[in-house]
Amino acid sequence: MNSWSIGVDLGGTNLRIAAVTQHGESLDTIHLPTRLAAGPQAVLDDMAGAIRQLIDKHAGDNLIGIGVGSPGPIELPLGVLHHPPNLTGFDGLNLRVELERRLDRPVQVGHDAALAAYGECLLGAGRAYRVNSLLMLTLGTGVGCGIVLDGRIWNGMKGAAGESGHGPLFPDGVPCPCGARGCLEMYASATSIVRLALELGMEPPASADPPHLTASRVAELATTGDERGLRVFDQVGQALGLALAHLVNALDLPLYVIGGGAAAAWPLFAPRMFATLREGSYVYRQSMPRDPNVFEPGKTHVAPAQLSDAGLLGAALLPVASRAAVSV
Amino acid sequence: MNSWSIGVDLGGTNLRIAAVTQHGESLDTIHLPTRLAAGPQAVLDDMAGAIRQLIDKHAGDNLIGIGVGSPGPIELPLGVLHHPPNLTGFDGLNLRVELERRLDRPVQVGHDAALAAYGECLLGAGRAYRVNSLLMLTLGTGVGCGIVLDGRIWNGMKGAAGESGHGPLFPDGVPCPCGARGCLEMYASATSIVRLALELGMEPPASADPPHLTASRVAELATTGDERGLRVFDQVGQALGLALAHLVNALDLPLYVIGGGAAAAWPLFAPRMFATLREGSYVYRQSMPRDPNVFEPGKTHVAPAQLSDAGLLGAALLPVASRAAVSV
Repeated sequence: MNSWSIGVDLGGTNLRIAAVTQHGESLDTIHLPTRLAAGPQAVLDDMAGAIRQLIDKHAGDNLIGIGVGSPGPIELPLGVLHHPPNLTGFDGLNLRVELERRLDRPVQVGHDAALAAYGECLLGAGRAYRVNSLLMLTLGTGVGCGIVLDGRIWNGMKGAAGESGHGPLFPDGVPCPCGARGCLEMYASATSIVRLALELGMEPPASADPPHLTASRVAELATTGDERGLRVFDQVGQALGLALAHLVNALDLPLYVIGGGAAAAWPLFAPRMFATLREGSYVYRQSMPRDPNVFEPGKTHVAPAQLSDAGLLGAALLPVASRAAVSV
Repeated sequence: MNSWSIGVDLGGTNLRIAAVTQHGESLDTIHLPTRLAAGPQAVLDDMAGAIRQLIDKHAGDNLIGIGVGSPGPIELPLGVLHHPPNLTGFDGLNLRVELERRLDRPVQVGHDAALAAYGECLLGAGRAYRVNSLLMLTLGTGVGCGIVLDGRIWNGMKGAAGESGHGPLFPDGVPCPCGARGCLEMYASATSIVRLALELGMEPPASADPPHLTASRVAELATTGDERGLRVFDQVGQALGLALAHLVNALDLPLYVIGGGAAAAWPLFAPRMFATLREGSYVYRQSMPRDPNVFEPGKTHVAPAQLSDAGLLGAALLPVASRAAVSV
């Protein structure tokens, strides 16, 4: 009898449910659209339905538990959503209790960015670098951040830890909807990459499909030498370097991972990111590897994420870790 | 038979050694000058001599252990100093091994700012606020920072965690000797308070003794309404607020403590500090207490330190906690 668990990644667009072995190997994945327009109860029904389907399929095996990753703000360990900007209509919903009621089983809930960091720590860059502490920045529509310390997710007092996508990196910079100025998210998210490109007058090629700028289009143009595109990613790199300087000085972790779609532009933003980090963090200078792209034990590393589904795997592994912790 | 431990606070000027009960009550304290000119071996001899004196005096009781706090950079858990700016001649010294050799007993070594945070957590503001996680900024000659998570000091990979006195708060700000620009230490240390005052043309009163500006003199003048003095502490408050915004967003702790000599000017810098923090951290806005000076369970607090000797007490309690951890 094999031991397995279920991970759920609840996004504003996609809902993914996976059956995963206790060692993190994916057995099955169900992809659904997140039916936001139908309301949270419908989304919860979809989720519960897919989970039951996986439970039936693997009935002979030992189900360790169910972990769900959600966008924030989510109050932990309660599991209550508070005005989540990417889940309209979900305010006040107790994701954990609602799902437990439908399934009649315990459910664990986490912050999606924290679960992505957890997945990368156990199965991705963390495993490759042989560390059990890391911080991961996820460059997507926004900028998420998750922290794993000594193999455990650091959620903070109420699940709000890892909001390092926000905070006044440039105190006189661009106003962010969060209320601060010059947040990392205003420079390093896919949305901001497009905004920065438009501000510099970049335009999509006439033949572009879709016929508007996207972050990956800006990256493509920069890769072919477009000066404005290169300037955009220089700003991305500077903002990442500043944010990392604060985080490295505060936490002294062995590994900082950059993930999310926009992280594919690593070759474009990494040079300025490392230069800014070297300048801004003497802790980094004291322990930087000779080659930032080569692993050196005991040094401080910044590396691209290695998994495409870290959040889903991290969600599935959440109950595995708790069981281990309880059984000790 | 009572259980007790020994704490040592090694400073660039003063060397303090205390006998402390396992509950944190001070039994005896020995104050010595730090004889830097005589070299590290002489300072270690002084330290070992004072420790032996306390051991002899309390011979009938159960000595739990010895904890030593040192200025950084100190590599932990090794205990090796690396070019400590406030301990000239100590570079490369293995503080732990040297002391263990002299005493023929195990010694635990920590970073002074981390031990101050630890002392405040167990016996000061942390106890008053009933929390077991906090971050403490110590405003002294420099700005120290210590982090306690779930009752344990977070030292980072090699003891460099808690360097939040450094890091590019103002990316175009005053250059700091650490290599970054606009570090917290360039605005909120006692040294920087004097520099900011001199830049604004402040002068000590003719009758002043000593006949030069000090941070407490600037605070006195500001308290009597001196416009330039008020501007200095407004800058202190802004820098603290920005640093706290980054830290609150990253860590979501229940308590942030401001200690050190310059923290006595709390009424002068707190208004701008709280205003900047509110603006810069939506995590803080979501969980701020109705009155920032009144404790409210489950909220995010920023409060002045409550102990004058947190570092010494924290050092003494270091071996107490380890014993507890081992005996579990």
